[in-house]
Amino acid sequence: MTDYSPTPADKFSFGLWTIGFRGRDPFGEATRAELDPVEAVHKLAELGAWGITFHDDDLVPFGSADAERTRIISRFRAALDETGIVVPMVTTNLFSHPVFKDGALTANDRDVRRFALRKVLRNVELAAELGAKTFVAWGGREGAETDAAKDVRVALDRYKEGIDLVCEYIRDRGHDLRLALEPKPNEPRGDILLPTVGHALAFIERLEHPEMVGVNPEVGHEQMAGLNFVQGIGQALWAGKLFHIDLNGQHGIKYDQDLRFGAGDVKNAFFLVDLLESAGYDGPRHFDFKPPRTEDYDGVWASAAGCMRNYLILKERAAAFRADPRVKEAIEASRVNELATPTLTSGETAADLLADDKFDVEAAAARGMHYERLDQLALDHLMGVPAR
Amino acid sequence: MTDYSPTPADKFSFGLWTIGFRGRDPFGEATRAELDPVEAVHKLAELGAWGITFHDDDLVPFGSADAERTRIISRFRAALDETGIVVPMVTTNLFSHPVFKDGALTANDRDVRRFALRKVLRNVELAAELGAKTFVAWGGREGAETDAAKDVRVALDRYKEGIDLVCEYIRDRGHDLRLALEPKPNEPRGDILLPTVGHALAFIERLEHPEMVGVNPEVGHEQMAGLNFVQGIGQALWAGKLFHIDLNGQHGIKYDQDLRFGAGDVKNAFFLVDLLESAGYDGPRHFDFKPPRTEDYDGVWASAAGCMRNYLILKERAAAFRADPRVKEAIEASRVNELATPTLTSGETAADLLADDKFDVEAAAARGMHYERLDQLALDHLMGVPAR
Amino acid sequence: MTDYSPTPADKFSFGLWTIGFRGRDPFGEATRAELDPVEAVHKLAELGAWGITFHDDDLVPFGSADAERTRIISRFRAALDETGIVVPMVTTNLFSHPVFKDGALTANDRDVRRFALRKVLRNVELAAELGAKTFVAWGGREGAETDAAKDVRVALDRYKEGIDLVCEYIRDRGHDLRLALEPKPNEPRGDILLPTVGHALAFIERLEHPEMVGVNPEVGHEQMAGLNFVQGIGQALWAGKLFHIDLNGQHGIKYDQDLRFGAGDVKNAFFLVDLLESAGYDGPRHFDFKPPRTEDYDGVWASAAGCMRNYLILKERAAAFRADPRVKEAIEASRVNELATPTLTSGETAADLLADDKFDVEAAAARGMHYERLDQLALDHLMGVPAR
Amino acid sequence: MTDYSPTPADKFSFGLWTIGFRGRDPFGEATRAELDPVEAVHKLAELGAWGITFHDDDLVPFGSADAERTRIISRFRAALDETGIVVPMVTTNLFSHPVFKDGALTANDRDVRRFALRKVLRNVELAAELGAKTFVAWGGREGAETDAAKDVRVALDRYKEGIDLVCEYIRDRGHDLRLALEPKPNEPRGDILLPTVGHALAFIERLEHPEMVGVNPEVGHEQMAGLNFVQGIGQALWAGKLFHIDLNGQHGIKYDQDLRFGAGDVKNAFFLVDLLESAGYDGPRHFDFKPPRTEDYDGVWASAAGCMRNYLILKERAAAFRADPRVKEAIEASRVNELATPTLTSGETAADLLADDKFDVEAAAARGMHYERLDQLALDHLMGVPAR
Repeated sequence: MTDYSPTPADKFSFGLWTIGFRGRDPFGEATRAELDPVEAVHKLAELGAWGITFHDDDLVPFGSADAERTRIISRFRAALDETGIVVPMVTTNLFSHPVFKDGALTANDRDVRRFALRKVLRNVELAAELGAKTFVAWGGREGAETDAAKDVRVALDRYKEGIDLVCEYIRDRGHDLRLALEPKPNEPRGDILLPTVGHALAFIERLEHPEMVGVNPEVGHEQMAGLNFVQGIGQALWAGKLFHIDLNGQHGIKYDQDLRFGAGDVKNAFFLVDLLESAGYDGPRHFDFKPPRTEDYDGVWASAAGCMRNYLILKERAAAFRADPRVKEAIEASRVNELATPTLTSGETAADLLADDKFDVEAAAARGMHYERLDQLALDHLMGVPAR
Repeated sequence: MTDYSPTPADKFSFGLWTIGFRGRDPFGEATRAELDPVEAVHKLAELGAWGITFHDDDLVPFGSADAERTRIISRFRAALDETGIVVPMVTTNLFSHPVFKDGALTANDRDVRRFALRKVLRNVELAAELGAKTFVAWGGREGAETDAAKDVRVALDRYKEGIDLVCEYIRDRGHDLRLALEPKPNEPRGDILLPTVGHALAFIERLEHPEMVGVNPEVGHEQMAGLNFVQGIGQALWAGKLFHIDLNGQHGIKYDQDLRFGAGDVKNAFFLVDLLESAGYDGPRHFDFKPPRTEDYDGVWASAAGCMRNYLILKERAAAFRADPRVKEAIEASRVNELATPTLTSGETAADLLADDKFDVEAAAARGMHYERLDQLALDHLMGVPAR
Repeated sequence: MTDYSPTPADKFSFGLWTIGFRGRDPFGEATRAELDPVEAVHKLAELGAWGITFHDDDLVPFGSADAERTRIISRFRAALDETGIVVPMVTTNLFSHPVFKDGALTANDRDVRRFALRKVLRNVELAAELGAKTFVAWGGREGAETDAAKDVRVALDRYKEGIDLVCEYIRDRGHDLRLALEPKPNEPRGDILLPTVGHALAFIERLEHPEMVGVNPEVGHEQMAGLNFVQGIGQALWAGKLFHIDLNGQHGIKYDQDLRFGAGDVKNAFFLVDLLESAGYDGPRHFDFKPPRTEDYDGVWASAAGCMRNYLILKERAAAFRADPRVKEAIEASRVNELATPTLTSGETAADLLADDKFDVEAAAARGMHYERLDQLALDHLMGVPAR
Repeated sequence: MTDYSPTPADKFSFGLWTIGFRGRDPFGEATRAELDPVEAVHKLAELGAWGITFHDDDLVPFGSADAERTRIISRFRAALDETGIVVPMVTTNLFSHPVFKDGALTANDRDVRRFALRKVLRNVELAAELGAKTFVAWGGREGAETDAAKDVRVALDRYKEGIDLVCEYIRDRGHDLRLALEPKPNEPRGDILLPTVGHALAFIERLEHPEMVGVNPEVGHEQMAGLNFVQGIGQALWAGKLFHIDLNGQHGIKYDQDLRFGAGDVKNAFFLVDLLESAGYDGPRHFDFKPPRTEDYDGVWASAAGCMRNYLILKERAAAFRADPRVKEAIEASRVNELATPTLTSGETAADLLADDKFDVEAAAARGMHYERLDQLALDHLMGVPAR
């Protein structure tokens, strides 16, 4: 057993807006002072993290003059160089400023859409400059509170136009950058376009360069729709589209909680880590959480450390689960691996299949699946109960 | 104003299992006697419906001998001929029999998968024979209660294999039949594969014959995930994939209620009818509801009549909404139609866009969207409040 | 038919924080300028409202000096006098300032609890001074994100201690003021104490002066727990505890939307108005909503006007529903009024009841309840469909 | 560390309907054969359970003749005697038979209400005869799908009348039996009366003999409303009303899953066991779960064993959490115990409190609560991570 201390090899990254979250919420003011991005970099390095990510406005305040922008960025780069912290992903804030109140790429106002696209393109340059390989797009304001406000078909046309332009621009500029769309069902809009991993995956197929675009699913966002996050990640992996991931916690269907990873549905987190590790996902393990408003900066860093610690504990537990002979036997009893055998024999036709009629329905119906034993073994491993 | 009496031109269809639902639920026994399918056909014709649909087992009990099957079908056809009721859609029951307890096309047991496919293929023949143009596939048992039971990626491989085989078979047989996948997030399984319209649309793109396969969204199924059904239908239409639709009602996130159409979120139903009618959807208006267990057959038919009545009321109201000069003016004030104008001018490049920098952010941010007035006009029309 | 223009006799009141909501949300900055309370009073009078309510800090900014406070209040009173607008209710902000991040009456820190109580007591004086009859207490921060943070039993002891003190103080001071507790399940805390109307009603019974304390249920708060608001109001009325009400709209289980009244589940709103009017509730019809962030002040006032308009439309519709002879007949068919007949005959004992054994179970089981017809008539009336 | 093998001293009890659940659900037929109650008793004894509970109809089929009833009961008693298994609780089935489709104690039909009460009273005799100390009442059909069907106030009058009669009868008969009401928000009815622990607690206060009536909360029922079960149990304990408890698992807001204890939100289960054990709850630890439909009887018994095993693991973990010096220190840092200090000094008046004005708001606001560290320690203990 290790002591669950992270190292850069674990590829843990944090959004600047996560550790820098000041605790403002719909009913209350900020409870923490501003965090200097340079301090954030140093502190993350100290904790064993590998990367830092940001929205343009997190680093360079909206509307900063060019000189100020340059100064801020070079100061930030120095901290990166000093610590070895990398910037694997960058994203654009298209939601905080009032100008985006009706959306960005799908705002009814065409000039707002054009402004939003310029903001994205400029940020693409910054992303490339800092060596990011993934560019996340969360369309948090692309939605509505009334169905009269938008024709969804037309809105998706505009969404596609915007993403297509960004892809085209990246290709023209020769950047080594892929896009990752981040779905969310609601909040801050009553309903948001591309509300789940599924909707985003489907949308991507209609783009001009689908190969450049994948998804950035967030634990809490899918759980806000009552969906099983592990299942959503499974489908994203199946489609070859898991370009990035946002790890955090959520207590079921309610407002977006952004708890630290592991703090919500820890059993789902166990199976998530099991899947990511066994599927060979090699992208960033990115934490998109908000340290609760009750905490001071000691609590912020405890919370950030907790995210990484929980991932490492669950990774160890998932590995032990897979290695346990009792589990192998239980998986056998549940015929889990039989699902990998194609239903048809190679070369078999529908006619052949129809002719094969010696099946004993009642006997098959009587077979137990033995899932309760298997699931209990998973829970035992999650809880660290050793085999007797 | 009409009296909202349906005619076959309205293309209203009902599942045999809906009006024939006997009221059994997880905590109680059936409260109604069996309904003879022939009586169902006659009664629906009398009420002004256009079509009837069924699962294979609804019409022909599971395990019936061939002679019995033939007798039942020919008796049913006679009723169709007599009344003019059509069979626009047929679907397969892959969920009631215990043999499907772990799924059908994605059951771990290969022989169960093969049996399920044979059941589907035989039902395809019946569908074609009865002139159905749509074949619905609801994979209600394709899922799990524990993530240890299934590797979602492998399960999707098997799902694809099964759907591909059915498509291949339909092509080989030369049937004029399209498939429509019906998503649902959960119940009867803890989590079901392809939980939303989005996930199903994404899955379809990975099939061998995506052009043959669309979706059959159900009002309540999307609302069980807290999703906006109108938005989901919008994305399905945008993708050219709305092959069929299941209309009913649901009171938010809870068990699958299958209320009569209009009885749940009536404002969402208003915008749904508005969208279907304005988008030129010309498929069946299919009701997949369950008359509450409290009702006798008088209540069943009142419930069925209510489904159609509500559609027609909402259709009238949506048309009045769109025709109202105040609404046109409000839509103008909200710049709803401006969303149809492409963000880029024809031929414009990213460089051109980046050069266009005379945007006044603050002025744009100050513009009101006037959605509250627009939404209130919609509500006024829904409630039949005349303009003064 | 009227034109649904409100008058003071309708007793419509608005929170100063509702029309004054500036549109800040967890992901975005304010989109509207500050609203002068005096302008708010005049505008509400113009729209036909009757009352205005506020949190202490809405009117007098937190930390204002005494002279400033006096100046603000006297300016506000002048506006009230000029317009005839009354202040039926006042409430205390125990949630915005960082000092309340762990709660107010149940904060772990005793000095914070004492500060909170002083803030309440001072506000009680202002409430009495302005003639308010109801003092609302929403404990939005009384809760936690982890069960390790609070022993709920101990927290309820402190909650009781605080409320008891406020009641004692009101009695000592001889004010004509009753308390109304406002339940909410979550947001801004992960879980909030007294999460539903039921929990608040139960808590009240354990107070020293239960007769002084009732509830102030909010439409959206109960619907955030998936509960039927009409049912909750029914139980509050049954207990004699509906002291005040917060009317707004919500689209099911998600973040707190505070839509205008009528904009969420309009059918539930129909039955709510039906209940309030038929039960003889004569307190304020108080709107606690947030005009969406997309709106400018034109939209704010359209939204406020919509709240009142929808109440009046629904009131007319509910009255027509109750007066319709078809409805009376349907209610008879559903034996709704039979529920008012006691189950036992006067003087009947358990032994008598046990002896009465001539019941025909199967015959009773076969009776239809005819609720579908009744519910459709309600929907018809909601949609303003005239009887033929 | 123990091997988590239960003994009767652990007071684990199971409903006969739980291990005897045959797997029928809204979309599928039974997958398991009937379980002989005598076999159930023997098997539970073998597994280390202490008690068995049942609905009248679970043991004696609805409508059995008296002789048959006597035969069944005496055979069952023999099994109890042989094994030492006790019957700590009995409950009445007022929901399965079609006669209860509109409710039992609140059915509109008075004769149905009278029949329901007779069924309850007869079952009270059986409960007393078998030595049960708790009589559970779940009003699963007391509700509606439309608000037009019931006046909630009148329905609560009837509910009270029914419960009052049962209490009166128990007193008259001199039985040592208390009632426990079981809340549930919905399913099988659209909305159920007394939907949460809070509503039930409030209702009890209006009864003639409130001291005889408490609650029987079920994990999944509260979680179906998105409520924190631990918090609900805290309020029930605070009110002295936790008379019985139904332990199981649920994956958030959806249909009633009745998973085995520990299988849903395991962290909430950890804090629940922590609370039950530290609060000195000495009633039955009753499992009300449904072994998934995928299982054969091996799976049923694995599932039942898992319920008890998880309770014992969590009990050990909660004890270790409370004993850990790091936890004590973290609790100190979070001032958790300071909440037990009354807010007022003994004898202090409101005037005294108002005079105490030396509070430094900003300093207090700056204090961190350190909950993240505390919650992580809880998670560490849940996962069995030893202190370094």
